[in-house]
Amino acid sequence: MPPQKLKIACAGLGRMGKRHALHFLNRTPRAELVAASSPDPVEIQWAKQHLEPYGVRLYTDYDEMIQQEGLQAVVIASATVVHAEQSIKAMEKNLHVLCEKPLGTTVEISQSVVDAARKHPHLKVMCGFSRRFDSSYRDAHAKMDSGLIGRPSIFRSQTCDMLDPSGFFVAYAEFSGGIFVDCSIHDIDLALWFFGQDSQVKSVAASGITAVQPELRKHNDRDNAVGIVEFWDGKIAHLFASRMMAAGQDDATEIIGTEGKLQVNAQPMQNLVNIYEKGGVRREIPPHYYGRFEQAFVTESNEFTAACLDDGKLPFKLAGAVQAVKIGCALQEALITGKKIYFDEVGRRSEKALL
Amino acid sequence: MPPQKLKIACAGLGRMGKRHALHFLNRTPRAELVAASSPDPVEIQWAKQHLEPYGVRLYTDYDEMIQQEGLQAVVIASATVVHAEQSIKAMEKNLHVLCEKPLGTTVEISQSVVDAARKHPHLKVMCGFSRRFDSSYRDAHAKMDSGLIGRPSIFRSQTCDMLDPSGFFVAYAEFSGGIFVDCSIHDIDLALWFFGQDSQVKSVAASGITAVQPELRKHNDRDNAVGIVEFWDGKIAHLFASRMMAAGQDDATEIIGTEGKLQVNAQPMQNLVNIYEKGGVRREIPPHYYGRFEQAFVTESNEFTAACLDDGKLPFKLAGAVQAVKIGCALQEALITGKKIYFDEVGRRSEKALL
Amino acid sequence: MPPQKLKIACAGLGRMGKRHALHFLNRTPRAELVAASSPDPVEIQWAKQHLEPYGVRLYTDYDEMIQQEGLQAVVIASATVVHAEQSIKAMEKNLHVLCEKPLGTTVEISQSVVDAARKHPHLKVMCGFSRRFDSSYRDAHAKMDSGLIGRPSIFRSQTCDMLDPSGFFVAYAEFSGGIFVDCSIHDIDLALWFFGQDSQVKSVAASGITAVQPELRKHNDRDNAVGIVEFWDGKIAHLFASRMMAAGQDDATEIIGTEGKLQVNAQPMQNLVNIYEKGGVRREIPPHYYGRFEQAFVTESNEFTAACLDDGKLPFKLAGAVQAVKIGCALQEALITGKKIYFDEVGRRSEKALL
Amino acid sequence: MPPQKLKIACAGLGRMGKRHALHFLNRTPRAELVAASSPDPVEIQWAKQHLEPYGVRLYTDYDEMIQQEGLQAVVIASATVVHAEQSIKAMEKNLHVLCEKPLGTTVEISQSVVDAARKHPHLKVMCGFSRRFDSSYRDAHAKMDSGLIGRPSIFRSQTCDMLDPSGFFVAYAEFSGGIFVDCSIHDIDLALWFFGQDSQVKSVAASGITAVQPELRKHNDRDNAVGIVEFWDGKIAHLFASRMMAAGQDDATEIIGTEGKLQVNAQPMQNLVNIYEKGGVRREIPPHYYGRFEQAFVTESNEFTAACLDDGKLPFKLAGAVQAVKIGCALQEALITGKKIYFDEVGRRSEKALL
Repeated sequence: MPPQKLKIACAGLGRMGKRHALHFLNRTPRAELVAASSPDPVEIQWAKQHLEPYGVRLYTDYDEMIQQEGLQAVVIASATVVHAEQSIKAMEKNLHVLCEKPLGTTVEISQSVVDAARKHPHLKVMCGFSRRFDSSYRDAHAKMDSGLIGRPSIFRSQTCDMLDPSGFFVAYAEFSGGIFVDCSIHDIDLALWFFGQDSQVKSVAASGITAVQPELRKHNDRDNAVGIVEFWDGKIAHLFASRMMAAGQDDATEIIGTEGKLQVNAQPMQNLVNIYEKGGVRREIPPHYYGRFEQAFVTESNEFTAACLDDGKLPFKLAGAVQAVKIGCALQEALITGKKIYFDEVGRRSEKALL
Repeated sequence: MPPQKLKIACAGLGRMGKRHALHFLNRTPRAELVAASSPDPVEIQWAKQHLEPYGVRLYTDYDEMIQQEGLQAVVIASATVVHAEQSIKAMEKNLHVLCEKPLGTTVEISQSVVDAARKHPHLKVMCGFSRRFDSSYRDAHAKMDSGLIGRPSIFRSQTCDMLDPSGFFVAYAEFSGGIFVDCSIHDIDLALWFFGQDSQVKSVAASGITAVQPELRKHNDRDNAVGIVEFWDGKIAHLFASRMMAAGQDDATEIIGTEGKLQVNAQPMQNLVNIYEKGGVRREIPPHYYGRFEQAFVTESNEFTAACLDDGKLPFKLAGAVQAVKIGCALQEALITGKKIYFDEVGRRSEKALL
Repeated sequence: MPPQKLKIACAGLGRMGKRHALHFLNRTPRAELVAASSPDPVEIQWAKQHLEPYGVRLYTDYDEMIQQEGLQAVVIASATVVHAEQSIKAMEKNLHVLCEKPLGTTVEISQSVVDAARKHPHLKVMCGFSRRFDSSYRDAHAKMDSGLIGRPSIFRSQTCDMLDPSGFFVAYAEFSGGIFVDCSIHDIDLALWFFGQDSQVKSVAASGITAVQPELRKHNDRDNAVGIVEFWDGKIAHLFASRMMAAGQDDATEIIGTEGKLQVNAQPMQNLVNIYEKGGVRREIPPHYYGRFEQAFVTESNEFTAACLDDGKLPFKLAGAVQAVKIGCALQEALITGKKIYFDEVGRRSEKALL
Repeated sequence: MPPQKLKIACAGLGRMGKRHALHFLNRTPRAELVAASSPDPVEIQWAKQHLEPYGVRLYTDYDEMIQQEGLQAVVIASATVVHAEQSIKAMEKNLHVLCEKPLGTTVEISQSVVDAARKHPHLKVMCGFSRRFDSSYRDAHAKMDSGLIGRPSIFRSQTCDMLDPSGFFVAYAEFSGGIFVDCSIHDIDLALWFFGQDSQVKSVAASGITAVQPELRKHNDRDNAVGIVEFWDGKIAHLFASRMMAAGQDDATEIIGTEGKLQVNAQPMQNLVNIYEKGGVRREIPPHYYGRFEQAFVTESNEFTAACLDDGKLPFKLAGAVQAVKIGCALQEALITGKKIYFDEVGRRSEKALL
């Protein structure tokens, strides 16, 4: 008899929810997608076609779904504003939780998820930092861990989306927490992964512009932003986020150590094809983050499932997600106020530069 | 109720057999691996651990396996010498067949599989030319089809394996058909795909050496070989196969047209990491073909399964596999005899150069 | 009779002085190197061997040299602290001046050179921003000018030197003006070139560390530093300078516009050779900036010479060099104090963030 | 007093002649261009503007030019058909000779230059294989010599020109010797350099097509050709030449050894700029060979000059140029006749394959 499969539900069937649902349905052998929910009729319609025929029960109400008999876990891919609430409710129903990033748009909300998880230590609760599951990032991290580049000192990372001229991001900015919380959260999480989860931020500075979408200003957001995050142990992360790339998704990371440098995706590419044509040599690049990180998402589903079934260790701690939101929010504040923000060695805000 | 799954068996559990078995078990949602066979006790031992617990029935005898109740298809990954025989037996049991390349080491044997398949037109019979399922090759082919490079004229392709100092390939050469039939068969198949499946070969010439494994000569084989295949419609393929790469698997292809050139994998890479260190910038490359083509194999399993279940069209015709073996065998003969070999416009051997 | 050649002298025969001398001697057909000076006996010894035999008169005293009969121009490659003084003296002798960067380590000193040049409008006075003569930077600038990337908005640039474990840079830091004035001055100059020479700085922020040479702190310097320069017209430059690269010189620049991005030297390389070996594929990179910019220096010599002889226009204005020093000094101050520094729209310091 | 300069004349002022003349005039400090000749009034007109003002005496007659008082050397860049004759005449006037490749279009003619040079052992006589002076090729050769790739075994090289739709190459083919003698001669020379100048050819095979210029057939030429050159010591060169590249000059070389592989220019590039734009990432590539090899030509002028003035050793022997022509002519014959051509171990033609 084959081993038991993890019965999981998917909350939210938007862009990323659809993908999570399909990953658990088709590409996670040890999981069984048994339920999915969305308040959106269009999304439910999609699910009737793509999920229901395979035995997935559909709900318009999240609370109802998580009462389904036999359910063991939930993947939360709904709007960011309900991430925390749905996560906590799931834990109260004794369900493992894989929650899309960020846990929330404020430190307090994010922390509430961590607090709830502490009360349910037998549950697996993970924030979906997909890049942690990407084979290239993992390879770079392993190489760093092996000492290949000496002591990591400078971290540079960017999340650059292709321009979406539809105006989607303007509406989205109202609730996203801003470009540093929404986009750079990945880079911040990577910085904490490469520099050490307990790194204490010392200062943040940021500048931004609205090069293509001035309407973003009404939501205190920008379409391009750069930031510096300084840590107390003598390490620095510098970040760039943009929503106006012409060529496609351009996410790159460098970790610079005292004896070497590791680059991840410094030459973005759609696949292994080069085109020689009038004008030179061209390669295409992925149009969006899913083109870059599809495999990482699938690995995420599989590893989360294995941890739930085998009571295994998750690859990283939930608490880090709060630290990432803290830094992201500070950067966003620095971006909007124009001020540099300082922290003392135990994480409290300081009015002055501390040397 | 979820749709029916394809009940499939795997014949042979060697290097590639294990992979096919796992792909059908875990990564082909519409298939159900129900059986596997191997005459090798070590392989059966592996299967007891990795397949049996998931409901896969094991056999030491292929003939017995293909009688299993409810079986619908078989993937054949046994030794090349039994590919044809096992394929034909499967068809006689009314099973769909996915047979590893090559169908056989001679044209006659390969043709026998095609002949059998003609007698069972309702069965899906496919030769596992995995590169046909690789997303980069498919992208290149689609770009060529769209006219991006004008009329394709010159094709250059290489299959270069990392040196295996164990001597494996010397023993293997006794039955492999030789480097052009075993390695270059992929490049030849690609040439036929890009130039048109009905391309008629006009001449072949080849030269080879034993740079690292002189013992190969006793099996009329070489460890490095280059060949030229000329077609009657004014197109040329030039091929290189090697088994002595230091860095890893190095399979590259170029299609040169009158208005452009497409390259596939001209810069092999293990992943998206660059390492800056004393000595320069380095990237790793896959150690073997599976590191390069893993996703293609998974796509192959899934598309074969879909074609069987939905009575769909296979992505390419079986007969092409015979043409590939014909060219491979001619190249191998040219390699060993030192002679150039000519064919007339209907495919018969000619003693003289035809202009 | 061949046209007249420009009679030029070289002041300073250190690392860069030697190179300038040889460029004017051998690789600048329209120039004739007639004199060279250095107070250092070792450098004079070198000159006796490499310059004197070709008709170059040697001096230990700069003031004496610039009185040489028939002299028309001088290239100043002496220590940074005497750049300004020697430039002004040369102008007073009616000599054209090519002065190595930076003009000085403070805005005031740098401005004094510009003021002197204004009094001698018939003289060609240029600051040696070598990257302005690099064919790749020029190509990128021309492409930007042609509108290829829309409106340039974000500029990212780094000057990263290979680690020199000799401790040279610690001693050097005493007079260099610091890493932003010495290294990043090139990137700042490029930012002004790509964004427009009249761009007004709005704020600067910076952070730095001493990852490998803590002794730099006694000279208020760092071995790694990142900075953000915000301009009043909604453009941002972010900069990185380092002196601890393991692999070699790693100077890269990106100009990101509303419709595209241009990269210069994102994949540094020594030449066009790739090495496939155990461990992967490797390319070497230049050990120092001269390996990257040799041709640019030669172009600089030739274009400066042509401008002098033909009373032509220099490719960029001297005044920009002061603006570059101003930004470099502000970044260095921000680096050391930990404070963000603000400027109003006419360039005066402001205590507060201006939105 | 500056050391003596080499007084040199330039024969022929076509495309390459102009370049040689300017290199010796402006970029070869130890040489003095004193004369130039061309029978073509248009070329003489160009020379009146670009050479005469700098003291270069012009001739319409080569024989007259080489009698000029004080002349020490000549660079021959005239039509291929007079290369040999002009070289021999120059030697008879006691002049050093740098002759453009090939020495002639037949082995006999080429050998006549070598024979003449043997009679004037004090003269420096060199065939202008410019790639021998390219820093990337030199670096690759030095790395091979150092043992980095073990024993070199397979050589792959291509000379691929951008399509010239003017029809120039059709007329040119009448006297060029054909694509293997004109284009691949560089690759053949490189093969001899990397494999050893005394490598004995064992067989050649070739195939070609006229993909874009069928008129070439009237001169027994092709616009695309591939060839295999087998050597008696177990080494193989495979070559590709094309005149229909869409993107630009695409000359690449690989040397594959038992322990590694060296690539030269596998990713052709115009400069260090990458363009990110709609459609992906693009880099430009040089439109013609001079864009790729300009520096190599300049190095050639300088090293030839130094060898003449200092009675130094030339970097390679003249006799190799005959061997290159021999192989080129054999490939051209194999291309046209469709036959494989065999040689015995002492270089004589054989009717049969020799194993």
